[in-house]
Amino acid sequence: MNHFLAIDDLSPDKVRHLLERAFSFKFNQDYPSYTHHIVANLFYENSTRTRISFELAAKHLSMGVVNVDVARSSENKGELIDDSIRTLAAMGIHWFVIRHVQDGLPAYLAKDLGTDNHIINAGDGQHAHPSQAMLDLMTITEKKPDLESLKIAIVGDIAHSRVANSLQCLFKMMGVRELCLVAPSIWQPKIVHYGRVTNSLEDGLQNADVVIGLRVQKERLAGHEALDLAHYREHYALTEHNLSIAKPDLMILHPGPINRGIEIDNAVADGPHSCILTQVQNGVYMRMAILDSLASGIW
Amino acid sequence: MNHFLAIDDLSPDKVRHLLERAFSFKFNQDYPSYTHHIVANLFYENSTRTRISFELAAKHLSMGVVNVDVARSSENKGELIDDSIRTLAAMGIHWFVIRHVQDGLPAYLAKDLGTDNHIINAGDGQHAHPSQAMLDLMTITEKKPDLESLKIAIVGDIAHSRVANSLQCLFKMMGVRELCLVAPSIWQPKIVHYGRVTNSLEDGLQNADVVIGLRVQKERLAGHEALDLAHYREHYALTEHNLSIAKPDLMILHPGPINRGIEIDNAVADGPHSCILTQVQNGVYMRMAILDSLASGIW
Amino acid sequence: MNHFLAIDDLSPDKVRHLLERAFSFKFNQDYPSYTHHIVANLFYENSTRTRISFELAAKHLSMGVVNVDVARSSENKGELIDDSIRTLAAMGIHWFVIRHVQDGLPAYLAKDLGTDNHIINAGDGQHAHPSQAMLDLMTITEKKPDLESLKIAIVGDIAHSRVANSLQCLFKMMGVRELCLVAPSIWQPKIVHYGRVTNSLEDGLQNADVVIGLRVQKERLAGHEALDLAHYREHYALTEHNLSIAKPDLMILHPGPINRGIEIDNAVADGPHSCILTQVQNGVYMRMAILDSLASGIW
Repeated sequence: MNHFLAIDDLSPDKVRHLLERAFSFKFNQDYPSYTHHIVANLFYENSTRTRISFELAAKHLSMGVVNVDVARSSENKGELIDDSIRTLAAMGIHWFVIRHVQDGLPAYLAKDLGTDNHIINAGDGQHAHPSQAMLDLMTITEKKPDLESLKIAIVGDIAHSRVANSLQCLFKMMGVRELCLVAPSIWQPKIVHYGRVTNSLEDGLQNADVVIGLRVQKERLAGHEALDLAHYREHYALTEHNLSIAKPDLMILHPGPINRGIEIDNAVADGPHSCILTQVQNGVYMRMAILDSLASGIW
Repeated sequence: MNHFLAIDDLSPDKVRHLLERAFSFKFNQDYPSYTHHIVANLFYENSTRTRISFELAAKHLSMGVVNVDVARSSENKGELIDDSIRTLAAMGIHWFVIRHVQDGLPAYLAKDLGTDNHIINAGDGQHAHPSQAMLDLMTITEKKPDLESLKIAIVGDIAHSRVANSLQCLFKMMGVRELCLVAPSIWQPKIVHYGRVTNSLEDGLQNADVVIGLRVQKERLAGHEALDLAHYREHYALTEHNLSIAKPDLMILHPGPINRGIEIDNAVADGPHSCILTQVQNGVYMRMAILDSLASGIW
Repeated sequence: MNHFLAIDDLSPDKVRHLLERAFSFKFNQDYPSYTHHIVANLFYENSTRTRISFELAAKHLSMGVVNVDVARSSENKGELIDDSIRTLAAMGIHWFVIRHVQDGLPAYLAKDLGTDNHIINAGDGQHAHPSQAMLDLMTITEKKPDLESLKIAIVGDIAHSRVANSLQCLFKMMGVRELCLVAPSIWQPKIVHYGRVTNSLEDGLQNADVVIGLRVQKERLAGHEALDLAHYREHYALTEHNLSIAKPDLMILHPGPINRGIEIDNAVADGPHSCILTQVQNGVYMRMAILDSLASGIW
């Protein structure tokens, strides 16, 4: 396994290995050293948190990091992205953390690369965001390790969310008892990998152990007569009132960046059940685990 | 003291401590090592010199540096700057060097952060630029240590200058004998922290030990009938002729970047009295002193 | 020799020294260490490959690297580029890798700098790109060391190519037997440093040992009635068919980024004779050799 492209490339054992490594980095601060490895960050879509999270993860493992300013890169001169990667590989860069608007691009790029090179999918279009799903799982199991007993709800624009896609695949693989995909009809997914779709937030939250809110992209609401912001807030926002029917020890996750007062209220985002900053913290350790496992070949 | 926000948070002892540390770094090159500390540069206004100065200062102290590309950051997705800071802190970044157009923003951000985190004001709006004031003081005392005997003039757009604000506070605290704030009437400050306002360059420069020129922002001149560029140059530019009434060992400072031929002539900027490049050099050592004092907690 | 500005500043001995150092870095991986040296990348024109190549070269030699975001730098505030360099030098940065659209700018900047500072020309206008020429020579001599026996063709927009300029100077200095400059008449150079100009690709490729394709800038073709893209492709593209009259062990070089299907076909760019990725790989080692020779003063 040279690349980290999608959850379905993993196995339950590999997932458990990544969790163990990530927790070990979190609690022992004893990091292996991969000097001479150089990671290129290629972010064709804006991202601060994911890029910096990978940058810190690489540096903790003594890897070098090169941030490619994609907006100014030679692809502006018409070079293909495959040629950019091959060029960087010829320079001795063998790690490529890629975010791109095009579904499947990381997998496409991985196909023709030699075994020396590692492609890591940091989010491709509406397809997958596997490192985000893994850090969400880490955050959940840190408090609620018995996945087979959990009810989890994902709330929001499931149809367009790469995070929701990767989470479905991961929760299915790891045997999460019940997954509810809560969305208004226009945002319900055409393809469901796992779980039950519902347009009722009450249905999803009833006795839920974990709720994962998704970001509302306001521009997506603009065109819809049946779904304006007020309607979304009334029926789908994570508010203290709406969440009162979940379990008392409910965990609240969100991949960020959050829209305060839109899909989530301040009292919820900053409240005692919120695990949003723990997700961010765990993200660095999970990305270290991913880099470490690919570099060592031990899974 | 966890943050470095404004001169008034310091005391004469703290100022002297920073000067001592900065000179010790300049002349001994024996630097403490703060590995595992990571500094985020968050520059919401353009700056090369200040950002790189802090970056070099941090690296000399073995700190890691992450440059956040603010133009592309998740704040473009509507995230609040407080959430950005909290997110970076959750990743293990505890130093935030911030430049922002909004007066008081660094102080606002510092309020709710835990004691682990350090906010450093690298210039906020028209309010303060305390590290610039400190490096100016370092440059002055390096040649003229007896502050209580000095006459200092600041010349230019005092009203809109965060540098002039911080310098007034610092010179007041450290007992500079005489401070003249020289500006045409439209650029005279509404609030004066210290010193005497005059519209006469001759008044300000007569027997001055130090003159600090400020940058003319040409667009600020555009709208004024009474003050065009020719008028400004005639009455306020730092020219060899204008400066001839100052002390023979006059020191000439400017926070940069300079507008050659506007507020300062080449013969002055590049002449024997110019300390402009010494300011830049001292800036790295002063910023090391600031980081070192905050990190060690020793002041 | 403090700077690396143009091929004509070198001598055959210095060229041979650079080649030896570069090959030694490539095959021994035993690198000298220049900690405390800091390199500033100042790229006023877009470039990924050259900037990252220099960045990696510097890091392999334990030099620090600062990327100056030129688009946001204080030159936007009207500061002169000389002042920017002097400012960075005052901060302790003594290496400046510069790419700029203006012919001769690096040489101009080098004139007034003290001997502590090093300017490296990473491409200036249509004038020179000496590190590219040196890495091309390294790639050629790696396979075909007897330069005095070689026929080399450069094909494309010779008139506007800084690479072609530097290559002519270098091949002349090192005694390459025969150099053909192949271009349609509108792209033939006004000044020829070395070699024979021809508009016949057949003339250039007949028994050639090495062919160097240049990038076609499509916008340059737009205005010409006599030379559209179809015409260029028919008469000047590097295709398997066109190259069949060259030597059987023909080497194909291109400075990149390539325009697949325009000046070069996929079968050629990715074929067994292509040395394009070797050029990229050698580029890092050659730039290490340049930095090392300037830093050590040993040539």
